[in-house]
Amino acid sequence: MDGRNGEERIVHEVAIVVPKRVREEEEEGDCVEVLVSELKKRGMVVDRVVGLADEFLKVAAPLETLGSAAAELHIRKPTRLGIDLPFEVQGSEAFFRQPDGSLFSWFERFHCYQHLLYGIVNSDGYDVTLKLDDKEFCWAAGESLVRRLESEGVIKQMFPLHDELNRKELLKTWALNWWNFTNQPIDQIYSYFGAKIGVYFSFLGMYTRWLLFPALLGIIVQMIDFGSLQFLVLPSFFVSTILWAALFLQFWKRKNAALLARWQINYLVGPSQGYRFIGMEWSSLPFPKELIKNLGNEKFKEKEAYQRYEWFAYRKRFRNDVLVIMTIICLQLPFELAYAHIYEIITSDTIKFLLTAIYLLIIQYLTRLGGKVSVKLINREINESVEYRANSLIYKVFGLYFMQTYIGIFYHVLLHRNFMTLRQVLIQRLIISQVFWTLMDGSLPYLKYSYRKFRARKKKKSEGGPSTGKILIASRVEKEYFKPTYSASIGVELEDGLFDDFLELALQFGMIMMFACAFPLAFTLAAVSNVMEMRTNALKLLVTLRRPLPRAAATIGAWLNIWQFLVVMSICTNSALLVCLYDQEGKWKIEPGLAAILIMEHVLLLLKFGLSRLVPEEPAWVRANRMKNVTQAQDMYCKQLLRSISGEFSSMARTQQESE
Amino acid sequence: MDGRNGEERIVHEVAIVVPKRVREEEEEGDCVEVLVSELKKRGMVVDRVVGLADEFLKVAAPLETLGSAAAELHIRKPTRLGIDLPFEVQGSEAFFRQPDGSLFSWFERFHCYQHLLYGIVNSDGYDVTLKLDDKEFCWAAGESLVRRLESEGVIKQMFPLHDELNRKELLKTWALNWWNFTNQPIDQIYSYFGAKIGVYFSFLGMYTRWLLFPALLGIIVQMIDFGSLQFLVLPSFFVSTILWAALFLQFWKRKNAALLARWQINYLVGPSQGYRFIGMEWSSLPFPKELIKNLGNEKFKEKEAYQRYEWFAYRKRFRNDVLVIMTIICLQLPFELAYAHIYEIITSDTIKFLLTAIYLLIIQYLTRLGGKVSVKLINREINESVEYRANSLIYKVFGLYFMQTYIGIFYHVLLHRNFMTLRQVLIQRLIISQVFWTLMDGSLPYLKYSYRKFRARKKKKSEGGPSTGKILIASRVEKEYFKPTYSASIGVELEDGLFDDFLELALQFGMIMMFACAFPLAFTLAAVSNVMEMRTNALKLLVTLRRPLPRAAATIGAWLNIWQFLVVMSICTNSALLVCLYDQEGKWKIEPGLAAILIMEHVLLLLKFGLSRLVPEEPAWVRANRMKNVTQAQDMYCKQLLRSISGEFSSMARTQQESE
Repeated sequence: MDGRNGEERIVHEVAIVVPKRVREEEEEGDCVEVLVSELKKRGMVVDRVVGLADEFLKVAAPLETLGSAAAELHIRKPTRLGIDLPFEVQGSEAFFRQPDGSLFSWFERFHCYQHLLYGIVNSDGYDVTLKLDDKEFCWAAGESLVRRLESEGVIKQMFPLHDELNRKELLKTWALNWWNFTNQPIDQIYSYFGAKIGVYFSFLGMYTRWLLFPALLGIIVQMIDFGSLQFLVLPSFFVSTILWAALFLQFWKRKNAALLARWQINYLVGPSQGYRFIGMEWSSLPFPKELIKNLGNEKFKEKEAYQRYEWFAYRKRFRNDVLVIMTIICLQLPFELAYAHIYEIITSDTIKFLLTAIYLLIIQYLTRLGGKVSVKLINREINESVEYRANSLIYKVFGLYFMQTYIGIFYHVLLHRNFMTLRQVLIQRLIISQVFWTLMDGSLPYLKYSYRKFRARKKKKSEGGPSTGKILIASRVEKEYFKPTYSASIGVELEDGLFDDFLELALQFGMIMMFACAFPLAFTLAAVSNVMEMRTNALKLLVTLRRPLPRAAATIGAWLNIWQFLVVMSICTNSALLVCLYDQEGKWKIEPGLAAILIMEHVLLLLKFGLSRLVPEEPAWVRANRMKNVTQAQDMYCKQLLRSISGEFSSMARTQQESE
Repeated sequence: MDGRNGEERIVHEVAIVVPKRVREEEEEGDCVEVLVSELKKRGMVVDRVVGLADEFLKVAAPLETLGSAAAELHIRKPTRLGIDLPFEVQGSEAFFRQPDGSLFSWFERFHCYQHLLYGIVNSDGYDVTLKLDDKEFCWAAGESLVRRLESEGVIKQMFPLHDELNRKELLKTWALNWWNFTNQPIDQIYSYFGAKIGVYFSFLGMYTRWLLFPALLGIIVQMIDFGSLQFLVLPSFFVSTILWAALFLQFWKRKNAALLARWQINYLVGPSQGYRFIGMEWSSLPFPKELIKNLGNEKFKEKEAYQRYEWFAYRKRFRNDVLVIMTIICLQLPFELAYAHIYEIITSDTIKFLLTAIYLLIIQYLTRLGGKVSVKLINREINESVEYRANSLIYKVFGLYFMQTYIGIFYHVLLHRNFMTLRQVLIQRLIISQVFWTLMDGSLPYLKYSYRKFRARKKKKSEGGPSTGKILIASRVEKEYFKPTYSASIGVELEDGLFDDFLELALQFGMIMMFACAFPLAFTLAAVSNVMEMRTNALKLLVTLRRPLPRAAATIGAWLNIWQFLVVMSICTNSALLVCLYDQEGKWKIEPGLAAILIMEHVLLLLKFGLSRLVPEEPAWVRANRMKNVTQAQDMYCKQLLRSISGEFSSMARTQQESE
């Protein structure tokens, strides 16, 4: 296995940026020296690289160091017993291994690194004076060294480093392997980037694969003339795309369950929040400590306190949601409608162009404002977990984008019944958005990287006096330092760059589904665009950006609900479109045609919700495998377990009785 | 606690009916004697009661006997570790106790009784000859005695016995406690009847309590004239009832979760099948044994085999569902429509009456036929568990009843727009069904009981020669023997009497919801009827029927989905009703009114599905409590657990490597 070799190969996974030393001679109490020696003392391997303007400490932690950190953190990991237990070094054989054979996932490793770095405290019992060139400052007893250095500005940044060996492997097998079409080495992506990005690429791949069916259907509908049956073509295309979408989402859930089973991530399937982790720290409940401590002593009072607390949190959330929805309806909706209306009225092309430019500027600003307001609102909420907060943000921001993207189109369709304009708008948006996002993804990070490199060189030149020719940046770590991070255009603290990627996909899905009847070829455009998307995203992650921080997520979370919502919406909008198409004279009569469309709409809505019950969300083999593993292990240890527990509890009960 | 005393009090919970001995003298090898001595040998307490025509063996099992039976059965019970483990006598302190303080629930006890009774085998190694009066038969070595006696007709019946002390207590605090209104001693009901009946009564109580709100609203809408705003009254009544229903179902899920937490029943919340048990035997997967054994050896092949197996089972189920739906649509729908149409055409009242009588006879027969066909179809399916099969049956039979009950009403409304007739039909059906079901529930069992008693007395008289006066039935167990069982009118092997009770409730709910706009007072009628229902059902279970066999269920299962479906249907039907009401001239124009109704319908549908995401299904205190208990125990034992597991697994891995 790769893991066996990997334990010997030392991989520097975190970089710390500190200032370059000005004087050459070694000094007593130099803070960088102290940091390096402390890191080494804690069992880490440090590699020092001197760059143009800064020095880089590349840190690696051997398995033993990571293990002891994980044990200190009580990281809960799935065991062969079927439950998650806090990690212990002596019992490491009991924990499931990652698909690549290693003991810790990238998320867990990074968590351990952070613990190790921030856990360096002054244990001498007295304050130590540290020096940096001419500055002096004091490292108090019991204080974290890294935190102190960060606040003093010595540590400029800390970021995860690419693992060159795996990165090159991935480049070869994934990003540049164009002939692989939609197949991706998902397990390797998971091992390298963590579960959240792994799940995203798995979703993107499956979506693109499934898109081929309606893409083909779209071409057939567009190209072939069915003669006297032509009036049936669009309704049947509508029905088949809706069924396709509902099935796709249901099968995605199955695929997701299979992925989690392969990656050994334990979860509880819950209809309200998608998937919930069991026993992981980051989804622990934010109940006040006193509440939890008292639970079980006075049952009835406690229950009430919890309920009061729950409703308090719920009321706050509800108020926020109402606020956001009302803002979108009362402020954004009129604005968008006004733009669409003015656009429809104006005849001059130049004024139209000017108007659009102004509009685009305003919405850029408004979206950013909306995002900031949403983040503020969410920070005031009492939410269960970071995951839940992120989902809450996604819903709110998606509401903004939804209005922005589609309301103008609805206006064109429903009030002006202008199908030609609609088709033009759809093509424009699909192509423009594809080009726009590709440019954003591909060029912007590179421009940022180049600018930073240029600035660093210039600085070096002006400092170094008369230099000879070009200054080369030799070290890989410095190059990575110049690369931009994988961050969202909105709400940096809650989401990473995946937010933008998912948003792009969802807006595209909404566009092609909601107006399927007006423009069947959109599916074909989307399929082509997604095949491109997959590779550009891969290249972005592997080449133009720093390695992203790993995030905990086992599913696509809120996005699944948004897609479900888009499918339901598209049942309604396509029905409206069909009514418009077959009722060109504007009589609005309920004739057999309209009645038939209404009935079809209702049947489809029922089917959509029925389907989610018909197709089981977890494949049979996943369930069987889990059951088998769990019951086997439980039965093996049940006797010794029970004896120890019951002994403990009966002695506890005895002491309780005595104290009473 | 009650449990501490209960352990000492001997409760005879199972009765075995055997023939009365004809001769007085004791005989060697009399099979009843052998049975009694074997029962006593296995640690049971037997009480022999001689009745009119039969002898009754009342069997009780002390806690030790039950415990060893549970350990032999490997009954899985929730432990303080957060997982279900097979029961062990030595570790009994580790298992959660029932709310009444006893170790085993009634379901588990009954399971143990069955195991104990059927587990009496001939362990002498040679065949034993048993006698019954003059008949002789052989009890082969290794054969189960009870099974042998059953097949010889010696054991006529075995049924669970009422526990007189608890029964009287329940009668006093529950069935006859009319002033308690909708409050019921749910925990006691659960302890006495098991989880399924406990959940039913909890649901009925909550439904009735919630019904008071729309009942009041219905009275207000019916009685008060709102003047110029009258046209808004019905739409707002419609909206509020739909929201009420959606909220009710969501809050029921919370209540159910709270109940399960109180009763210490572990479950997994799954959106597809409602709730799933973990690790309970009766929901174990029916995968072929070879599949499970091989799992894990050749991963890829196995996955495929499972998938093939899953799709095979799915295809069979799907074919059956399509068959049932097509039968209902193609055979039942025309039949019902024909009846409604003929009823509408005929003017003579006598012919109408005759027609209705014939119709009722035919549907009685058809429903029974449909039920039998459904049971046959389900028996051919490969289903995951008994629970799943029962649900499958419920869906199919409810489909039949749905068509039968509502399609005629739809016909009256939509085609003839006869609102007066509709109201009359609704009142008739609500009152008639209430009277009919009360009669069925109350009198039929009593009649059966009286008839059986009468026959037994007559037989005794004819045998006993010249008797003096009336023969009294003195023993309680004989009286119970004459009482009928709690059984469903359909599909006895899959469901008990709860099927009829739930069906009644669901049909009532559909009636009042789907035609809410036509007859708001229906809610009031339903509320009154349900208050009655609760008490009559309680009396039925406690007085007129035998104690029901306990069944495993943690939720109302398929019925919840049916109620959800009825809410969605009622959004559509009420919209149609409103269109009819406001469009009396039959113009069918999409004017502002119709458009408004359509929009309202769609918004409500969205809200209905949104709500299920907004209100969490599990109360916060339940979750907090579970998390606290589980993590506490897990952390306490984690070290010793891990060491033992990892030791075991590493030695296993070593032997595997060596064998390779």
